Amino acid sequence: MKAVELLQVEGRFEMKRGHLLSPTIAYETWGTLTPRADNAVLIFTGLSPSAHAASSEKDPSAGWWEDMIGSGKPLDTDRYFIVCVNSLGSCFGSTGAASLDPATQQPYRLTFPVLTVEDIANSASHVLDHLGIEQLHTVVGASMGGMTALAFTLNHASRCRRLVSISSAARALPHAIALRSLQREIIRNDPLWQEGQYDAANHGPVSGMRLARKLGMISYRSGEEWAERFGRERAPDFAEQDTPFGIDFEVESYLESHADRFIGSFDANCYLYLSRAMDLFDGLDHGGSLAASFSSLQLESALVIGVRTDALFPLTQQQALAEALSEKVPDVAFVPLDSIQGHDSFLVDMDRFRPAISAYF
Amino acid sequence: MKAVELLQVEGRFEMKRGHLLSPTIAYETWGTLTPRADNAVLIFTGLSPSAHAASSEKDPSAGWWEDMIGSGKPLDTDRYFIVCVNSLGSCFGSTGAASLDPATQQPYRLTFPVLTVEDIANSASHVLDHLGIEQLHTVVGASMGGMTALAFTLNHASRCRRLVSISSAARALPHAIALRSLQREIIRNDPLWQEGQYDAANHGPVSGMRLARKLGMISYRSGEEWAERFGRERAPDFAEQDTPFGIDFEVESYLESHADRFIGSFDANCYLYLSRAMDLFDGLDHGGSLAASFSSLQLESALVIGVRTDALFPLTQQQALAEALSEKVPDVAFVPLDSIQGHDSFLVDMDRFRPAISAYF
Repeated sequence: MKAVELLQVEGRFEMKRGHLLSPTIAYETWGTLTPRADNAVLIFTGLSPSAHAASSEKDPSAGWWEDMIGSGKPLDTDRYFIVCVNSLGSCFGSTGAASLDPATQQPYRLTFPVLTVEDIANSASHVLDHLGIEQLHTVVGASMGGMTALAFTLNHASRCRRLVSISSAARALPHAIALRSLQREIIRNDPLWQEGQYDAANHGPVSGMRLARKLGMISYRSGEEWAERFGRERAPDFAEQDTPFGIDFEVESYLESHADRFIGSFDANCYLYLSRAMDLFDGLDHGGSLAASFSSLQLESALVIGVRTDALFPLTQQQALAEALSEKVPDVAFVPLDSIQGHDSFLVDMDRFRPAISAYF
Repeated sequence: MKAVELLQVEGRFEMKRGHLLSPTIAYETWGTLTPRADNAVLIFTGLSPSAHAASSEKDPSAGWWEDMIGSGKPLDTDRYFIVCVNSLGSCFGSTGAASLDPATQQPYRLTFPVLTVEDIANSASHVLDHLGIEQLHTVVGASMGGMTALAFTLNHASRCRRLVSISSAARALPHAIALRSLQREIIRNDPLWQEGQYDAANHGPVSGMRLARKLGMISYRSGEEWAERFGRERAPDFAEQDTPFGIDFEVESYLESHADRFIGSFDANCYLYLSRAMDLFDGLDHGGSLAASFSSLQLESALVIGVRTDALFPLTQQQALAEALSEKVPDVAFVPLDSIQGHDSFLVDMDRFRPAISAYF
């Protein structure tokens, strides 16, 4: 049984570029909202997760942040009412390119409007309205979710008392744009993508998604981790072949199995839209400089966590975010962590992340 | 007029994995060999360049290291006799997968034997024999060329008095292997690759080569450089489109034009062979540890140059190489440079590289 709830947003939702949409937003909750509704924590996700951040009675399967959310855990469901939304534009219940356009009864595909991080943020405000939450205790996000949390904090300043930004950035910079742009081009170059008109029942451009996922994994982890973990170990089932290609090394086998698990589970067009939304995000849009953009913030405090080995959202960007927040927010903590798993550390290096999050809450 | 010379290696050349070949090796020379033949400098190239490292009377077109080689330049052709070889396995005159197999009068394609960096190194020794050079003044290489220079130094210890290794590594580590493996998979996934049986006259798998080159460029430069150079500048000819894809940012336009220049100029199968040769390279093959491998070296001195922002051949690997060399070689200089152009710095940051190379010579 799924714990996911589906909210049909009433009326017309206006997107950043002016398009109107009647979206559904999928979300899950854990814990109990206080009568004063002052203990709500909103979590925005990275590009690929669903709203199923943790297990619950309704859905005991492990969530993507299982170690972080639950009774006695850093995001303690005995104290907080946790809400996690599936991003607008994604494919796990929220409306996106794979959803049916009510006007045509066909999937939107490439007729879905240009998606921005601000749209994802704004759509979540309807979930809060629905749940009777005027003001959040904290808004939390990692990676793309950190961008979304920041966009939410900028566009809904009065709803935000605290911000936790993890391995994220206030704006997309060209190295990350180049990586994501190349992932999208790889998917679009798969003949089975068919200009977005692929047969989703057959998973569409699986080769393109496989290659894009591998590139993602390379950018999500670190060379330092892999040198320790794999070194030059040969793949178990693939003796070094006397042919030009194939899998020689353990690291290639690891990428292959990760890509296998991803393809088929994520819609290619949705991936393209969410990926580009990250490129388009620029916190400076609100004011010309981060400090100016942040002038309307009403936060009491903020926690910015970054990782030394993050090549996709480098620590320098997170330090810059923390410094800009400090101009306006009374209490800002910048916590650089020495994890070696790169950008993905917030999903795997729980020994470092749990205490950092716990200390803030 | 081309300055390139072609040497048909006499007899059968035995490759590392035991295959026999009768290769041609293309090379160029600059300057004059002394009567004692003691002023020869051998240059190995990175994956993609030809032997045309610099202009000459015969071929006045600029070479790939034009700023480094010539009269009065760091590799001073008034003093040194410079030899640059096109790698065995490449497609600029030396025998590779695109060459005709004399046995069949058809291109080798995937019947070309597994290529190793050691094969590239060993094939160059025939060029030295032909030129009457018993012992080199210095062997120089950057990137894959640095691996090749090291392999040459290990396999032909008595011919090497000095080594200059630039932005290279003593062994391939998994992050770099993953990037190259993915580039190869991208090329092989292009339907026009046709299991290597593509029509070379029509340039074969151009989409795959385009995408692989873009991934190469991302790994060759640094996020720090691109943040300074491009920031979030929009592409000139591509106004931000209200469609999901296309080129929005200057960095995407830059990658597009670089890829345009590359495709068509490099044979896809040759690229695959050379790329995998780098993955297979392990200086420890010679002794189980670098220090043990280096025990037979007869070098008088070595210079190891690395760049702080190199993500493909990180500085830590180059420091490790310098330290291992120090165990055996009397005079080893390790020069870390603060260039921001990443792995490609040796091709573009001449203000830092010229003095470093000059000081050694």
